[in-house]
Amino acid sequence: MLQPDTERIAQPEHHPLRDLLVGRPLTTASAPHQTIRKIVALPVFASDALSSVAYATEEILRVLALAGAVGIAAFHLSIPISIIIVALLVVLTLSYRQTIFAYPGGGGAYIVARDNLGEGPAQMAGAALLTDYILTVSVSIASGVAQITSAFPALIPWRVEICLLLIGFMTIVNLRGVKESGAAFAGPTYFFLGITSLLLATGGWQLLHGTLATVTGVTTNVTPVVGALTLLLLLRAFSSGCTALTGVEAISNGITAFKEPKSRNASATMVAMSVILGITFIGITILANQIHALPAEETVISQLSRTVFGRGPLYYAMTAGTTLVLIMAANTSFADFPRLCALHAGDGFLPRQLTMRGSRLVFSWGIVALALFASSLILLFNGDVSRLIPLYAIGVFLSFTLSQTGMVVRWRKISKLSPGEEVHGEGTVLRPDRYWWAKQGINGLGAVLSFVVMLVFAASKFTEGAWVTVILIPCLVWGFFRIHHHYRTTAKALSLEKVGNPDLRGHAIETLLLVDNVHRGTLQQVRFAESLGRPWIALHVSADSSKAERTRQRWEQFIGNRGELYMIESPYRNLVGPVQQVIKEIQESNPGIFVNVVLGQLVTTSWWTQLLHQNTGPLFKFSLQRMHNVVVTDVHYLLEPDGTIEV
Amino acid sequence: MLQPDTERIAQPEHHPLRDLLVGRPLTTASAPHQTIRKIVALPVFASDALSSVAYATEEILRVLALAGAVGIAAFHLSIPISIIIVALLVVLTLSYRQTIFAYPGGGGAYIVARDNLGEGPAQMAGAALLTDYILTVSVSIASGVAQITSAFPALIPWRVEICLLLIGFMTIVNLRGVKESGAAFAGPTYFFLGITSLLLATGGWQLLHGTLATVTGVTTNVTPVVGALTLLLLLRAFSSGCTALTGVEAISNGITAFKEPKSRNASATMVAMSVILGITFIGITILANQIHALPAEETVISQLSRTVFGRGPLYYAMTAGTTLVLIMAANTSFADFPRLCALHAGDGFLPRQLTMRGSRLVFSWGIVALALFASSLILLFNGDVSRLIPLYAIGVFLSFTLSQTGMVVRWRKISKLSPGEEVHGEGTVLRPDRYWWAKQGINGLGAVLSFVVMLVFAASKFTEGAWVTVILIPCLVWGFFRIHHHYRTTAKALSLEKVGNPDLRGHAIETLLLVDNVHRGTLQQVRFAESLGRPWIALHVSADSSKAERTRQRWEQFIGNRGELYMIESPYRNLVGPVQQVIKEIQESNPGIFVNVVLGQLVTTSWWTQLLHQNTGPLFKFSLQRMHNVVVTDVHYLLEPDGTIEV
Repeated sequence: MLQPDTERIAQPEHHPLRDLLVGRPLTTASAPHQTIRKIVALPVFASDALSSVAYATEEILRVLALAGAVGIAAFHLSIPISIIIVALLVVLTLSYRQTIFAYPGGGGAYIVARDNLGEGPAQMAGAALLTDYILTVSVSIASGVAQITSAFPALIPWRVEICLLLIGFMTIVNLRGVKESGAAFAGPTYFFLGITSLLLATGGWQLLHGTLATVTGVTTNVTPVVGALTLLLLLRAFSSGCTALTGVEAISNGITAFKEPKSRNASATMVAMSVILGITFIGITILANQIHALPAEETVISQLSRTVFGRGPLYYAMTAGTTLVLIMAANTSFADFPRLCALHAGDGFLPRQLTMRGSRLVFSWGIVALALFASSLILLFNGDVSRLIPLYAIGVFLSFTLSQTGMVVRWRKISKLSPGEEVHGEGTVLRPDRYWWAKQGINGLGAVLSFVVMLVFAASKFTEGAWVTVILIPCLVWGFFRIHHHYRTTAKALSLEKVGNPDLRGHAIETLLLVDNVHRGTLQQVRFAESLGRPWIALHVSADSSKAERTRQRWEQFIGNRGELYMIESPYRNLVGPVQQVIKEIQESNPGIFVNVVLGQLVTTSWWTQLLHQNTGPLFKFSLQRMHNVVVTDVHYLLEPDGTIEV
Repeated sequence: MLQPDTERIAQPEHHPLRDLLVGRPLTTASAPHQTIRKIVALPVFASDALSSVAYATEEILRVLALAGAVGIAAFHLSIPISIIIVALLVVLTLSYRQTIFAYPGGGGAYIVARDNLGEGPAQMAGAALLTDYILTVSVSIASGVAQITSAFPALIPWRVEICLLLIGFMTIVNLRGVKESGAAFAGPTYFFLGITSLLLATGGWQLLHGTLATVTGVTTNVTPVVGALTLLLLLRAFSSGCTALTGVEAISNGITAFKEPKSRNASATMVAMSVILGITFIGITILANQIHALPAEETVISQLSRTVFGRGPLYYAMTAGTTLVLIMAANTSFADFPRLCALHAGDGFLPRQLTMRGSRLVFSWGIVALALFASSLILLFNGDVSRLIPLYAIGVFLSFTLSQTGMVVRWRKISKLSPGEEVHGEGTVLRPDRYWWAKQGINGLGAVLSFVVMLVFAASKFTEGAWVTVILIPCLVWGFFRIHHHYRTTAKALSLEKVGNPDLRGHAIETLLLVDNVHRGTLQQVRFAESLGRPWIALHVSADSSKAERTRQRWEQFIGNRGELYMIESPYRNLVGPVQQVIKEIQESNPGIFVNVVLGQLVTTSWWTQLLHQNTGPLFKFSLQRMHNVVVTDVHYLLEPDGTIEV
């Protein structure tokens, strides 16, 4: 009978604005081709980690500056602190390298924890990572804008506005899709690496030849605390520096975006990233110490590049490069946050809508949600990096801990395999490995160190804001499980498993037209009722007896005796109650009957004219939706732009 | 067949929270009894006018304080200015007395202008009054809170919060209905009148006996402008003082709320109000001059009562009384704004919803809208009376002008009647009057004076904020006419006037079930389709071929061949487009056919669980509502709190 023209249906719709901003829709079939080469993957996935050099050194100095009396002397401690952090980076890189090979389908903390530790730890890892992705956007954008305002102090009052503008821009770029994002972002990241190398080389040269100046014209905005160089302060400085390690895990989450061989390419990219990160971080910390940089309104990077390059084109190039790489860092979250949300949602721990790919194959809801959360944090903390930092990094180190602990458990499983045996898990294959004990050791070391850092971070920064994260993560986990419980309950309730041969016979049916007035729209309502080919009744609920009388007269004149019209007075002007009561009476006298409530709905040409009408439809639908065997039918009549109604 | 139990239907529903806050519903029939005696009407309708003495004198002094060098001397000019304003009050009172008798059904500027000047001036009067009602709430509440913070300076930082709290409280009181509002508010207003009389009497006694002190410990917050005692400054001082006259028209709007004989009672109340207002305003201005009160953070009323009474119980009583009467003043707007909105809406110039009486017979939407607008102004101007004043009063004087001009036209019509002739208008009766020329003269004088004051106000305060009102009122009028145009177009389009004997025969009909999956809810959808007793088809739009295959298998297993299932692939993951396309094809091959699109809708137990489901229903409805002869039916299946679905 019906022969749908599948060719016509297969065409995407046109939306000029959408097409301009995010591009034409892509077919589902084109999804697997959206992979990227290593050279593009580095800027996309590694910029989060690399960009943290823009604030990590500064945040160490900011804590050490509190050690008042000791003064500049305390700043030198930033060098050993940085070296410890880089040692930690080496362990984490080796740990995560193993994860990338073990989980070629994507080895984020969520997947590894779920596979090895169970649902609870997996949800905790997920909550931790989601929190930190949001903070990555806020911190990176705030730091990027701090670079701009260091170069152009006149922009300081517009800090928050610039942050929000940048987040808006990134939202649009990411709604276009990951491949084009990569292409758009590769250039700037390499530019940053180039200009930073030049900075380190020039600064190193000046240092060796004794021509490196000290910074001038900077006043610190940190008030020292007398006698404060305590162990706690050192631990706080170390924690602040550990923000340099955020983003190290990004590649393990995104392995599927790499070209084949995925694991090998991902691993190589990760090692390259760690080497660059380590060298840059240590280099910047040493030079910052040499020039006597101070935590101030001007960023340390700006002070350093101003001292090394002078306030010329290279200085502005460095500012531009740093700002851009920080924007890329935020972009890492725009790639990872929606993907992780989709994973959670697919397992029923977050709203299902997050699994749906938009017209450009990206998880549009996740992108929009991330932009909203990150913008809120910027507004709440007035775009100030130092106030955001204490909330940051706990989540990252919690997820590191869970992921590496999961790997330890996985090596134990492998140790129990017989030679030649293979166990296929979800996205992973367990094969015997004679060096399992060494590899387990690496992951174990990673897990222990991550756990210690997390504790140090939470304890040393608790009162400064870390408490927010410490409370938030368990709340999120609780929320995830509530959502999961609801989905499970619903799935069970909807299941047909125990239904052998369902009774699908029709019931009796009563068609009930709700009539407010008799006009051209009512005719359409009546025509539809007549088309159903069975008797029907109409109901007018009246709060106004003169209107009721008018309605009855017009009904007699235009509709006549096709359907019977019942008039019900509502002395309390409540429209819904009387209708519910009538339905109940129909159902009481005829159990099992379907009541088909037919509403008329005027559709106007614009949203504001639509609001001018009573729009009682949604009200009726809402109040009738919890009644059994009540069906609501909408008959529309359209007000055309020329002011006519064609029915 | 159907015998509705009207007794059960006539009962109001119970909502514990609503009943507690705004009271049980009232029947429509109880509306006419909601009238009030003069003794209650005075506080309800006159408090706006009376309360303006709390800020009018102060605002005059605030302008005169700008005349720097002349200093205290300039303040004495406030006395002649006040006398001129009171003379204006006399003329307006006589003018409005005539309006009250001419329009016993309510003689607000809107009605008088519509009746005599036409639609355009009526809408302008309405726009002016609506604007000013909103400002009355903002100014009165801000001034009331200024009285509180004068007595308790510690509360100054909470100024805005206290304002918003008060507006919220008044919203609830007014949603309860006007009679109870009157009762609740009568006491405080009389308390204010009593304590103010005591202040004036004590102050006058001290003045006559030479014991009236000058105020101490006050520093002005106005910076004088050198050589500024110009004519413009005097006009500005006069304009500021004219805010004392806002609210004089309140009674003419609310005549129907009085007991019979309505006009006589309303008129007597108005005269009493004007006499009290005139005496109080002049008295306060004279005493404020004698004690050398200064415009400062502390209000002039507070300075005066502190000087006369000393900082004892009487001082705090005066503060309480003034604050309370200002709250009543705001309450005048809560009575008038919704009523005027309902009038406009009844004539089709504002959304119809504003004519609907809530459960307590008040125009609930109007009350809520007023509260929202007034709160926004408080937030925007930080609750500062002096910043709000320039926006205020232009609207009042514009409506005075239009209303009195309307009366002049009305007297002209009366002058042309033959003896004994009666012309019945809407809410008014024209009878010959031998003194028509004298009465016309009074209204004419009122019109001219109001017009001059309005021009002086707009010109002298234009740059300080009056421009907002000058631009806003025409915009509102334009908006009113756009709304009116839409309502007229719609009414014409819906009209059956030219339809003699409409064709009400049914059309052919195709029932189209949209199926996302096969589950327990689908069974209910199918049962409903079967109940309709004619062939039907089902459609599955798929973005995922494995899900499509699963759906087909389950359809075959559980539904079998009752209805034919069509599968359509949507490569761009768009669900709506393919459905629209299928409908178009059905309609192309069978013109005039109704397509009844049957959707399944899971209804959960709470709003947050509802959000966890795709809820594509509204999306489909929205995209199908502009298609001709397409009807959308919702089949609900309910998730019960015990986690089952009973269908």
